[in-house]
Amino acid sequence: MITLHNPLDMHLHLREGDLLKQVLPFSAKCFSGAVVMPNLTTPITNTTLALEYAQEIQGLSHNFTPFVALYLQESLSENELKKAHAHGLFLLKLYPKNATTNSSSGVANILSPSMLKILSIAEELGFILCVHAESGGFVLEREVEFHPILHTLAKRFPRLTIILEHMSDARSRALLDTYPNLYATLTLQHISYSLDDLVGGALNPHLFCKPLLKTPHDQATLLDLALKAHPKVCFGSDSAPHSIENKHACACAAGVFSAPILLEALTTLFDAHHALDKLQAFISDNALRIYNLPKRVTLPQKSITLSKIPTSAPQIPELLVPHFPLKWRVDA
Amino acid sequence: MITLHNPLDMHLHLREGDLLKQVLPFSAKCFSGAVVMPNLTTPITNTTLALEYAQEIQGLSHNFTPFVALYLQESLSENELKKAHAHGLFLLKLYPKNATTNSSSGVANILSPSMLKILSIAEELGFILCVHAESGGFVLEREVEFHPILHTLAKRFPRLTIILEHMSDARSRALLDTYPNLYATLTLQHISYSLDDLVGGALNPHLFCKPLLKTPHDQATLLDLALKAHPKVCFGSDSAPHSIENKHACACAAGVFSAPILLEALTTLFDAHHALDKLQAFISDNALRIYNLPKRVTLPQKSITLSKIPTSAPQIPELLVPHFPLKWRVDA
Repeated sequence: MITLHNPLDMHLHLREGDLLKQVLPFSAKCFSGAVVMPNLTTPITNTTLALEYAQEIQGLSHNFTPFVALYLQESLSENELKKAHAHGLFLLKLYPKNATTNSSSGVANILSPSMLKILSIAEELGFILCVHAESGGFVLEREVEFHPILHTLAKRFPRLTIILEHMSDARSRALLDTYPNLYATLTLQHISYSLDDLVGGALNPHLFCKPLLKTPHDQATLLDLALKAHPKVCFGSDSAPHSIENKHACACAAGVFSAPILLEALTTLFDAHHALDKLQAFISDNALRIYNLPKRVTLPQKSITLSKIPTSAPQIPELLVPHFPLKWRVDA
Repeated sequence: MITLHNPLDMHLHLREGDLLKQVLPFSAKCFSGAVVMPNLTTPITNTTLALEYAQEIQGLSHNFTPFVALYLQESLSENELKKAHAHGLFLLKLYPKNATTNSSSGVANILSPSMLKILSIAEELGFILCVHAESGGFVLEREVEFHPILHTLAKRFPRLTIILEHMSDARSRALLDTYPNLYATLTLQHISYSLDDLVGGALNPHLFCKPLLKTPHDQATLLDLALKAHPKVCFGSDSAPHSIENKHACACAAGVFSAPILLEALTTLFDAHHALDKLQAFISDNALRIYNLPKRVTLPQKSITLSKIPTSAPQIPELLVPHFPLKWRVDA
């Protein structure tokens, strides 16, 4: 038996409308809060939209705190940023233009003078910058090709906390060691799987995500960081629901929907590697510290107990669940 | 306008039953002959099966010569090999066990004493060894990890012609330079696409094949060999029909069905690179020489003329066609 206190998912897609209503309960059941991504059909680019979205989520689930990130755009003004700060928003999400799902409104040049000015104000106000760190280059080199931008930002804004989200490449580890203000979130799929699981046997669209799964060496490096609950990393699932139609279509969208089985899968994984004693830090404590959450938000107190009893992933019509052999079950 | 004489497809899957009847006309229309793969539901492991299969194909299309390869197994006897030779068969196909579709009956250890003895007799009899050259390792390293076996075979059997089929990795080029008896076939997809086209944007199951598409550098190297009609390479499409159900299923099978548009696509590609003068060698002359075909088989004489007129791929129910912008059309 193991009890996890206030699990946090520092990278979550909840989408909108009926899909939001369908997927939110899976996260709200086991997590105290989550960083909620703003790449909706209408991106969450201002305070009003962010507060409305947060309210909608809290209206659907009272026992769960969404930390809605503001979708960073070249047009974001100093006034809007200050307004966001005044209303308790503290996360900016940087999507390089067209890097992933619904990122066509992303930033074309993060190092432009106007963007640097906004980031400087963000630093002053204590914002955290969450980054989808991928270039537009060859799919296996995109994260590494984005390193120069991370170097520049981390050096130029030493008091700005920067999160390399869904870290996927072993070569990014050196950046965490280099910059005190640079951290990373890790997903379940990137610590569990490599490109072999996506395309090594039959093609498995369930594991298609951006950044792409990489080599077994990359996976092993990420898993090692997670199992140690390395102080520069915390958990962020990047769980992203897509309909079966969308996933099985001839040209299918990127995203793994893992929310319904996250704690069961992570506990199974950490147990298999004799690292259960590090799970609390990975699933919550590191995030509380990295994001300075106690000073920023009120979290519902949750204690989730799991028992070592084999269980199966729920059958969810229209939504996809990856196949993990689950050896732990959340107690009812 | 360009006229191609006796196009040859040195790696083709025609399958069996209704699927054979559906796909054969696409190859028979434009090609004089093809190396036909033996990985059927019941693998073509002996002379009787090979001759029956060849007869069935010729019964369906009189104007097309199939060169049926014999599926190499550990159980293949010296007598059976001599019988195959006596009946005009001249190709052995080596599938490492479980490397690709229908390869569960493949060879577990190609360097075992009994296999080396069979290969020695094959060398004496003038057989050609066609190799699916992949290890069971990480998907992007499988061809390179198979190199030691190719080194061993090429050195040990210097008079045995060895074909590295569907070459996919730039690092294999050195092998072609090193061994006079080692050659390669190139597919349309490996010279046209990289991993970016499969998983760089949306997932494109149409381009999922084994060996997997690799980096843009690999693609550029293979394309360069093709456009030069390098004397050590020739064309082999590896066109492999799969039903839409199979291809779009949650775990989809590997294989690109390209037969219906091969000449149009290759001509478009060579034209775009100002290499039309090399197309005849790539599509036929190199293969005639490498496989010593004039001494082995009778080929129906075909001259296929193409005109520079945009055309579209045929709509074929149940079968898949990759999306190429086709700027050349085969004259009716």
